[in-house]
Amino acid sequence: MARYRAILAYDGTAYAGYQRQRSGTSTIQGVVETALNDLFATPTPVWASGRTDSGVHAVGQVIAFEASWKHGEATLLKAINRLLPDDIVVRDVRQHEGFHPRFDALRRCYRYSILVAPAPDPLTRHCLWHLTRPLDVEAMQGAADLVVGVHDFATFGHAPEGGGHTIRQIFVSRWQRDEIPSGERVSYIVEGNAFLYHMVRRLVGMMVEVGQARRSLEAFREAFEQADIRATGRLAPAHGLLLERVDYADTQ
Amino acid sequence: MARYRAILAYDGTAYAGYQRQRSGTSTIQGVVETALNDLFATPTPVWASGRTDSGVHAVGQVIAFEASWKHGEATLLKAINRLLPDDIVVRDVRQHEGFHPRFDALRRCYRYSILVAPAPDPLTRHCLWHLTRPLDVEAMQGAADLVVGVHDFATFGHAPEGGGHTIRQIFVSRWQRDEIPSGERVSYIVEGNAFLYHMVRRLVGMMVEVGQARRSLEAFREAFEQADIRATGRLAPAHGLLLERVDYADTQ
Repeated sequence: MARYRAILAYDGTAYAGYQRQRSGTSTIQGVVETALNDLFATPTPVWASGRTDSGVHAVGQVIAFEASWKHGEATLLKAINRLLPDDIVVRDVRQHEGFHPRFDALRRCYRYSILVAPAPDPLTRHCLWHLTRPLDVEAMQGAADLVVGVHDFATFGHAPEGGGHTIRQIFVSRWQRDEIPSGERVSYIVEGNAFLYHMVRRLVGMMVEVGQARRSLEAFREAFEQADIRATGRLAPAHGLLLERVDYADTQ
Repeated sequence: MARYRAILAYDGTAYAGYQRQRSGTSTIQGVVETALNDLFATPTPVWASGRTDSGVHAVGQVIAFEASWKHGEATLLKAINRLLPDDIVVRDVRQHEGFHPRFDALRRCYRYSILVAPAPDPLTRHCLWHLTRPLDVEAMQGAADLVVGVHDFATFGHAPEGGGHTIRQIFVSRWQRDEIPSGERVSYIVEGNAFLYHMVRRLVGMMVEVGQARRSLEAFREAFEQADIRATGRLAPAHGLLLERVDYADTQ
């Protein structure tokens, strides 16, 4: 048995999130484990860097599993992908003894993408949050600057089940805009050591309130400093969110 | 009865192309006409600026139809969209007597998008052509420069059914590259007075041959100058193609 580390990309549209569930719903983890079970002809549990919600996408989710395989990593990559549907792809797989995708992760990097346009865009409807009104991206960057550093993010999420605190460190928190054929795309890039449940979507939701002048920067700051989930704002929809990368000591 | 002009966006993935077909296959035109027939309670044929192939997308297809409607354009827009599925959207509709989307069109603007990355990207699998090997974009721009102007494009497509020539004028022919989360995106922007059937996909296919050093720029030029479909190269897949805009005298 060897331990393998893999990078996973998926279109989360058709799935009830990353994490396997008791019922018969389709999840990323469930589909990947089924593929690995078939390939190795033995139950093969998969660990991930973290969960993603239903509808959330990934281009750089990191997972690990243990298996006996004698045909090399390139062959393993092809063999797994042959057993996966079109909307889930293993981008890379390599042996890495002792690797744990969650405990070893140093940084999680997310991107949240918004389309600002009068009309919806069918082609990006599963990966951009469509808003019709213009956003004040400079004001949103003002809010984004406030969350950089080590803070209590209790306003943006509950502590993990089974205890734990709500302190997290944010390294990068940046809004950017570019033109796409259907309108203006406004994207939020956020990188942190870890994130609370729904934290990125709550950050985006409340920053969009600032960008729509429905909440002042000062009101954002006050809600943030309250460190209380009851001060939370809008929850941005799942489908705009992409897990872009997870960094480890050897990839930073 | 008044004539209306509308801008249509669609995700072409689920459709057998724009044009209505005799059989029961699902087409963009068929779905839009069904919606209009229901809304106006009378058969309502739709004209378009041109067809798009199965799997090709649009953000700026232009159509026209005639109808009796007394509740204003904004209400009409909402009423049509309520009857359309998620993957087809009318972005704009306004009254325009005498307008013909095909005969009045001065310029068609297409964008073809390629993902260059070792691994496929599930999230963009329906709208980017995935290639694993690097492309020499400078060489491709050399080929792109050759097609600007008035030329016989017979190498890149047949004359329309029922006669007609293969001379077309290209105004813009430009490759550009940018980074996206899953790799490098290489895009071809091409604008012309009109295009032959499959012409954009044949231009992209042969320019990609140049970018992969499977065809020299000189061989591209010779094939182009032959003005013969038998000299054609690779046909790029449909799903990378987007009809971005159609220009008329009043929108140029």
